[in-house]
Amino acid sequence: MNTRQLEQLARKLLDGTLVLEEFVIEATRAATADLGEAQIDLDRKRRCGYPEVVFGQGKAVSTLEKIFHRLVAEKVDVLSTRISTEQAAELVQIFPSAQYNPVARTFRIPLGETDGRLAKRQGHVAIVTAGTSDLPIAEEARETLLWMGVQVTMVVDVGVAGPQRLPEHVPQLEEADAVVVIAGMEGALPSVVGGHVSCPVIAVPTSVGYGANLGGFTALLSMLNSCAANVTVVNIDAGFKGAYVAGLIASRARRR
Amino acid sequence: MNTRQLEQLARKLLDGTLVLEEFVIEATRAATADLGEAQIDLDRKRRCGYPEVVFGQGKAVSTLEKIFHRLVAEKVDVLSTRISTEQAAELVQIFPSAQYNPVARTFRIPLGETDGRLAKRQGHVAIVTAGTSDLPIAEEARETLLWMGVQVTMVVDVGVAGPQRLPEHVPQLEEADAVVVIAGMEGALPSVVGGHVSCPVIAVPTSVGYGANLGGFTALLSMLNSCAANVTVVNIDAGFKGAYVAGLIASRARRR
Amino acid sequence: MNTRQLEQLARKLLDGTLVLEEFVIEATRAATADLGEAQIDLDRKRRCGYPEVVFGQGKAVSTLEKIFHRLVAEKVDVLSTRISTEQAAELVQIFPSAQYNPVARTFRIPLGETDGRLAKRQGHVAIVTAGTSDLPIAEEARETLLWMGVQVTMVVDVGVAGPQRLPEHVPQLEEADAVVVIAGMEGALPSVVGGHVSCPVIAVPTSVGYGANLGGFTALLSMLNSCAANVTVVNIDAGFKGAYVAGLIASRARRR
Amino acid sequence: MNTRQLEQLARKLLDGTLVLEEFVIEATRAATADLGEAQIDLDRKRRCGYPEVVFGQGKAVSTLEKIFHRLVAEKVDVLSTRISTEQAAELVQIFPSAQYNPVARTFRIPLGETDGRLAKRQGHVAIVTAGTSDLPIAEEARETLLWMGVQVTMVVDVGVAGPQRLPEHVPQLEEADAVVVIAGMEGALPSVVGGHVSCPVIAVPTSVGYGANLGGFTALLSMLNSCAANVTVVNIDAGFKGAYVAGLIASRARRR
Amino acid sequence: MNTRQLEQLARKLLDGTLVLEEFVIEATRAATADLGEAQIDLDRKRRCGYPEVVFGQGKAVSTLEKIFHRLVAEKVDVLSTRISTEQAAELVQIFPSAQYNPVARTFRIPLGETDGRLAKRQGHVAIVTAGTSDLPIAEEARETLLWMGVQVTMVVDVGVAGPQRLPEHVPQLEEADAVVVIAGMEGALPSVVGGHVSCPVIAVPTSVGYGANLGGFTALLSMLNSCAANVTVVNIDAGFKGAYVAGLIASRARRR
Amino acid sequence: MNTRQLEQLARKLLDGTLVLEEFVIEATRAATADLGEAQIDLDRKRRCGYPEVVFGQGKAVSTLEKIFHRLVAEKVDVLSTRISTEQAAELVQIFPSAQYNPVARTFRIPLGETDGRLAKRQGHVAIVTAGTSDLPIAEEARETLLWMGVQVTMVVDVGVAGPQRLPEHVPQLEEADAVVVIAGMEGALPSVVGGHVSCPVIAVPTSVGYGANLGGFTALLSMLNSCAANVTVVNIDAGFKGAYVAGLIASRARRR
Amino acid sequence: MNTRQLEQLARKLLDGTLVLEEFVIEATRAATADLGEAQIDLDRKRRCGYPEVVFGQGKAVSTLEKIFHRLVAEKVDVLSTRISTEQAAELVQIFPSAQYNPVARTFRIPLGETDGRLAKRQGHVAIVTAGTSDLPIAEEARETLLWMGVQVTMVVDVGVAGPQRLPEHVPQLEEADAVVVIAGMEGALPSVVGGHVSCPVIAVPTSVGYGANLGGFTALLSMLNSCAANVTVVNIDAGFKGAYVAGLIASRARRR
Amino acid sequence: MNTRQLEQLARKLLDGTLVLEEFVIEATRAATADLGEAQIDLDRKRRCGYPEVVFGQGKAVSTLEKIFHRLVAEKVDVLSTRISTEQAAELVQIFPSAQYNPVARTFRIPLGETDGRLAKRQGHVAIVTAGTSDLPIAEEARETLLWMGVQVTMVVDVGVAGPQRLPEHVPQLEEADAVVVIAGMEGALPSVVGGHVSCPVIAVPTSVGYGANLGGFTALLSMLNSCAANVTVVNIDAGFKGAYVAGLIASRARRR
Repeated sequence: MNTRQLEQLARKLLDGTLVLEEFVIEATRAATADLGEAQIDLDRKRRCGYPEVVFGQGKAVSTLEKIFHRLVAEKVDVLSTRISTEQAAELVQIFPSAQYNPVARTFRIPLGETDGRLAKRQGHVAIVTAGTSDLPIAEEARETLLWMGVQVTMVVDVGVAGPQRLPEHVPQLEEADAVVVIAGMEGALPSVVGGHVSCPVIAVPTSVGYGANLGGFTALLSMLNSCAANVTVVNIDAGFKGAYVAGLIASRARRR
Repeated sequence: MNTRQLEQLARKLLDGTLVLEEFVIEATRAATADLGEAQIDLDRKRRCGYPEVVFGQGKAVSTLEKIFHRLVAEKVDVLSTRISTEQAAELVQIFPSAQYNPVARTFRIPLGETDGRLAKRQGHVAIVTAGTSDLPIAEEARETLLWMGVQVTMVVDVGVAGPQRLPEHVPQLEEADAVVVIAGMEGALPSVVGGHVSCPVIAVPTSVGYGANLGGFTALLSMLNSCAANVTVVNIDAGFKGAYVAGLIASRARRR
Repeated sequence: MNTRQLEQLARKLLDGTLVLEEFVIEATRAATADLGEAQIDLDRKRRCGYPEVVFGQGKAVSTLEKIFHRLVAEKVDVLSTRISTEQAAELVQIFPSAQYNPVARTFRIPLGETDGRLAKRQGHVAIVTAGTSDLPIAEEARETLLWMGVQVTMVVDVGVAGPQRLPEHVPQLEEADAVVVIAGMEGALPSVVGGHVSCPVIAVPTSVGYGANLGGFTALLSMLNSCAANVTVVNIDAGFKGAYVAGLIASRARRR
Repeated sequence: MNTRQLEQLARKLLDGTLVLEEFVIEATRAATADLGEAQIDLDRKRRCGYPEVVFGQGKAVSTLEKIFHRLVAEKVDVLSTRISTEQAAELVQIFPSAQYNPVARTFRIPLGETDGRLAKRQGHVAIVTAGTSDLPIAEEARETLLWMGVQVTMVVDVGVAGPQRLPEHVPQLEEADAVVVIAGMEGALPSVVGGHVSCPVIAVPTSVGYGANLGGFTALLSMLNSCAANVTVVNIDAGFKGAYVAGLIASRARRR
Repeated sequence: MNTRQLEQLARKLLDGTLVLEEFVIEATRAATADLGEAQIDLDRKRRCGYPEVVFGQGKAVSTLEKIFHRLVAEKVDVLSTRISTEQAAELVQIFPSAQYNPVARTFRIPLGETDGRLAKRQGHVAIVTAGTSDLPIAEEARETLLWMGVQVTMVVDVGVAGPQRLPEHVPQLEEADAVVVIAGMEGALPSVVGGHVSCPVIAVPTSVGYGANLGGFTALLSMLNSCAANVTVVNIDAGFKGAYVAGLIASRARRR
Repeated sequence: MNTRQLEQLARKLLDGTLVLEEFVIEATRAATADLGEAQIDLDRKRRCGYPEVVFGQGKAVSTLEKIFHRLVAEKVDVLSTRISTEQAAELVQIFPSAQYNPVARTFRIPLGETDGRLAKRQGHVAIVTAGTSDLPIAEEARETLLWMGVQVTMVVDVGVAGPQRLPEHVPQLEEADAVVVIAGMEGALPSVVGGHVSCPVIAVPTSVGYGANLGGFTALLSMLNSCAANVTVVNIDAGFKGAYVAGLIASRARRR
Repeated sequence: MNTRQLEQLARKLLDGTLVLEEFVIEATRAATADLGEAQIDLDRKRRCGYPEVVFGQGKAVSTLEKIFHRLVAEKVDVLSTRISTEQAAELVQIFPSAQYNPVARTFRIPLGETDGRLAKRQGHVAIVTAGTSDLPIAEEARETLLWMGVQVTMVVDVGVAGPQRLPEHVPQLEEADAVVVIAGMEGALPSVVGGHVSCPVIAVPTSVGYGANLGGFTALLSMLNSCAANVTVVNIDAGFKGAYVAGLIASRARRR
Repeated sequence: MNTRQLEQLARKLLDGTLVLEEFVIEATRAATADLGEAQIDLDRKRRCGYPEVVFGQGKAVSTLEKIFHRLVAEKVDVLSTRISTEQAAELVQIFPSAQYNPVARTFRIPLGETDGRLAKRQGHVAIVTAGTSDLPIAEEARETLLWMGVQVTMVVDVGVAGPQRLPEHVPQLEEADAVVVIAGMEGALPSVVGGHVSCPVIAVPTSVGYGANLGGFTALLSMLNSCAANVTVVNIDAGFKGAYVAGLIASRARRR
């Protein structure tokens, strides 16, 4: 609750619209739906620009069901990530209008009304992957950006070992408001992309590789030490977060 | 060199403006000044939006002098980071118009002409620190943003152990296009700020703390695992990079 | 055996209640039941305030059966942790009065007589979790506190990414003698809670998360570096230990 | 600001004691003194039971001076840790009534009035060290407890390699409300102490040792894995925090 | 081939017992049986005192069969470690006189003749475990010592959390020529045992525990930093190696 | 595209062989086949001497099929590594002329014409393993060298614990142009081999071992610190890469 | 205090040699000299075979002086390790009969009477180093063994990169009761020595090397994974401990 | 000693050129000069192609002097690495013909006779650095190659953040027999170079960078995971070793 909101409540208290008990409740309660095992943040869209996204990994289907129903009731365009095929099989029964992307492992329940946001896509993000094996993370990123109403370009399998592959795509990247670069193994691609473009690069390390790749930690460290000044980093395999930040940048760039 | 540039050159070849030898040289050379021990990237501003920033740590004063002279000759507004007081003492003799910030350890040689960019500051970034000891990194960030022509708000010493300190500054943060959050020890502040604002948060871990802080690695790991979706991360003590990315976001947001 | 106990035995030796051989046996033996593959510490309750709790992971059902029978014979209120559903299915056959909590993975055989301790719960501990996925560890903690005869309040899913969720629960936490805070990912919640309450906070990192969460190690490191002065830490996923220490603090606070 | 405090303010608004502008300022401001480079938490004592302790490492003397003056003005019994002999030499000139402990590296400015708290020491904490080299951390702990008004017993150099040394001190430890155990190298002592006493044990790992002690990390890991159920852990060399938590436990135990 | 052996061969060359070709072959070949995928070291017993022990993990049953047949043909008392129950089921068919210990996962084919070595056991080693879960490693150690012809005493489940359990076994440990101490979690037991006995202690860390036990690495580090001067360490879960070294010490002690 | 190639294209533009549009396309496109989810590097053989090798792990059979068909169409002798038996079973149906080595997990589709390269093997590489369990990596290395047309010698199971086994093979190693040494556990063998030969040694650490072998990381670290000056290192279990580099060295050595 | 000792005391109580108070004091006190900041273990020689050795690193000279005086008074042959040249310069003034070895950093105060133990050296240990830089650790080991009265053979600079150097020393090593092998970098030497001898090998990793030697941790890990069955390991740079254990083995071997 | 050498000795024994004692000494001795604290490997040149190079770090000047004198006496062209300016100042007095390179920290005593090897340089190695700060390691590499008689090309400061800098140097790299790529921070350059050339690439990670560069470990890990098949890796800052292996490859390539 910010200063302005509190002032409005106080005015209502003064002019009698609210009695003291009502005022105290209003002024101290949060916009949270308490589902027992979960507290749904209904104020997120106002505060952060987009509603809460549900991390599905390790949650029981019954819990997910409860959360999704509540969000749908609030007219939220539901996006849930890390939903396994097993979870999805059950959830699709319950929410027949939902879309499951098995490569991305994302589950989405679009608003029943015509999805206006898709029509007026604004902002533009490019997703670049080093290899074919990085595709699941790239798909999670793509789904996230579509849900945010941001336009997406995909450039796949242009890692540094074949250095002739990237340059032909640079003009495409120059069009974007932000670039999400997804790479495993030595994680060198974000630095090279960063040297070619003027917009921010969000580097997403993946667990692709073996041995001293340390499950993606090597790519993560490599990206954090990038000598390109426009590269920031998110967690290993964090396709959602990489895309979310890129989407925020792109939508802000277009908004003004 | 992108497609359009090559096409222009080829036209000149066809119409005789360039002979074959000139064409090949133009089409394959890069805009790099070779200083022997360093290759200065003179094309950076065109390609990336801002000229090259010089990382001063471990470089000989004679090397820095050579690089700075070349950049000044190219009419570049020089910014150099990690300049020790010893290096600065010598360099100030050579470049009397330069400004050295001993807390930030930044060295800057502004363009001789009135610095127009400062007058028309566009974009707005907030810098937030968890503690007083994070100030040197925050100062490096502030200097970088001023050099980029971006407006800066500083909010200092509002770490999570005194949770009543942050909320009063939230309205200020809501004004910004991006927030740089600087914290050592457990690195929890970016997550909390991320939950309050809708713009991207660039988290900068610092080496402040002792023991199991692992020289800043704990804060770094913590920030990478932030449950707030709008948080990305840069290297430990990387005040310059955190600010540079935030500045890119802010200037893009305002440009349109 | 402490000074007082030895003095008592020596008096018995002098007055003939014990002969020399008996004295030596008494004075040097420990209150331990030797079951071959396990040595049960029957003196624990006297020495430490509560009887031994049995760590079930990796133990054969036959071993557990032997240990439980011996404890029941000693009139101990048995608590066993990390009991899988497979182990529980067999053990419930053998101990029909036992209670198995499949979320907490705890197995308990209450004393046959009316469980007086439950009636006169003293001391009060609050358990707080950052997310829904931390529930199994929270349940292990809750079962432990109930076994200790301590009153429990649960506050679930109030992690820092939704910062408006915690404040409304602060009054509840201010009532407690100790707070157990359970969090994975960046492990920031204990610091925030620590800044709000005056009692000790026991932080329990969990393995919830992925990638650079390092199986819970990131949360562990984060909590150890908490800038809140009242936060101590236990092992990853150590719901039992976190609750046990909190219970000791609470029961001591109420005892006087 | 909790529910009760807000209700009181709203009453004042209703009865005209406060006008609307005053109400909004009161209801949203925090009890923080803004010193520019530091925000002093003046509400800490009400919220957390003890005032803020100042971590001196890396702070300029001028900054410390400003903070101390403000705290003294608020009638706070100042405690500052990690003050080097160089810092202390200057500070003692400014605050002649201050006491500096060079082994503990603590700096204290007691309240001018007779220090009533010292007279009525309540609660009892035992500090145990494994070796002679752990003494600086033990001294920091002792100074902290004296500042809190808690009674202290010191048991020094009773590490496990000489297993006959600890038992004779067990009766002393049994008297305490909490035990702080300080050890480097393999960090085994907290487990052994934990097996002997019924109160909570706060384990403080130290950087004493060499090679595979990993600067104290080995002792830290060892303590986190203690098989004794009553052991919790704080950061490496964190004598202040270990003592602070033990002091909280002890003072609560005695308060009731 | 040592100096003496070479001298003998050279004498044979001089006196014509060997022709030049035979001499070169003899002098440069090693006592190794080449089985294609494995080179069996037939000289090990002469060089090292005991024949080669076969590490079974990850080896095909067909490979093991080939190796065992060759060793049996050389009249070697076969010992193989880390043999899974699956491997054992097949191998027992092939070698009906073999003994498989499923807890220790050891497979042994004793010499057909009466096993004289067992009758005249010399040297004495004590095996001590911290907990019941360390038993598989302890059993591997016991089997190794029996194979070496060394007398064994087992002391099980005397970890430091129940400190009254060890002292009553100290007299037994004082009889041994070497003590193998097996512990997981914080790995504190070897230090405590080391403080009680005068013979070498071989510490074997186990992977028992969870979370920050790091799969046994914490116990390993702890043991390497033992403040007891007579403690050396082997790899995690290395029951065979711990016992082998203890057996070497014990048999040498008795041999003279 | 290098300088010479660009010059040739420009000549064609000038003499009218190419029109402007054709020239731009030719001059900026790369020799890459775009298969949607993969970009095949058709220029690799010209640039790097050998065509692209396909890393099969984690790729769908349908993706592999598409890639293999394209490479076969380009008359490339296909080599694919890390192909599981499941993948191979399907692929062999599609490419009946292919050869699958289940130990090496390599899949190869030789050119239909008589494989001339095999006939004129040039260059000579020795592969040395420390143990029998290193065989899968050694087989991957052997398959790679055969595909490169390089002659191979295998020396298996000559680890340092049986130091008499290596010397008899030294003359064989002295014949080689490069030696690939494959070892797990302590990874000591490359240093010993390096001390015996004058050619480069490529050390391949393997994940063979347990506990503190850290999944091969210990062997990797050990090899990187080799005191032998001729030892370089590749990733854990990287049989392909170790052999590829050795093959490059050998084929160059013979080429001149 | 063991069973036998307690029985003797009890007999004295019964026959009146001791009154009850005396008995309790005797039976529960430990043989420890309390020097305030240090507890000297006077019972160590009886319990462990050798008196306490003083670890000098980080101890004040005044503390060392107090400890040494007490030990000399108890007729103990003092050995102190890790004594810096600064500490030694002061201590030699106080204890003129002491011997300081600046390479080993050991300080020794032999018994005034003719040092009988040196005359009748029994047991034989070989010390082997990989390089010249390992000498300080080797010297610490040698001094320790001389203090223990054990015969020493030194074999220096025979690391594996020059594999022809070790074999000529093998006959010397075969004479020893135990071998201490000291190596940094890849730490391969203990495995090679272990393959040549039948006695236990104590491996001492050193911090010699750079980069990925991780300050000796690489050598430590390598040695723990030795494929030679007779190798155990101590801490990095732990020359004293390596020698102490070897000395225990050697003296036991000879004693019988 | 190989088979052929032994056969020759045996022939001498048979024909009486050697008596038995002489034969045994010859056949078992190694070509090693024993200097007490160092064993110089005089056979290295025969066995490995080049004489021993002396690692100077941490060695006393007196030790270096002894070693250098012996090598000079054997007519070896002395190369010593990691010689500090302090060591060099003294050594230059003793060996006036020596050359010290203070950037590379190498010390060389060329053979008195005209250095024939320099005249007939064979083989060609390119050294590439990512940044100006990598120069000391590059200089060590250059000195090593000159000592080996190999031709060197230097390409400095062409890191990936300025991606237009490398391509213009590719033709130079294509001329080389091997390329040494030296880079700190994210260590991406070797992968990019590897994609451009057909010869082996030796990657040398440097400690250049800060924070999460982990003292060069990040670059090391990155290089080990290179997706370019022709990249192998050496230790951090190992300019000598990287160059030595490249030199071996180049000289072999040219020899035939």
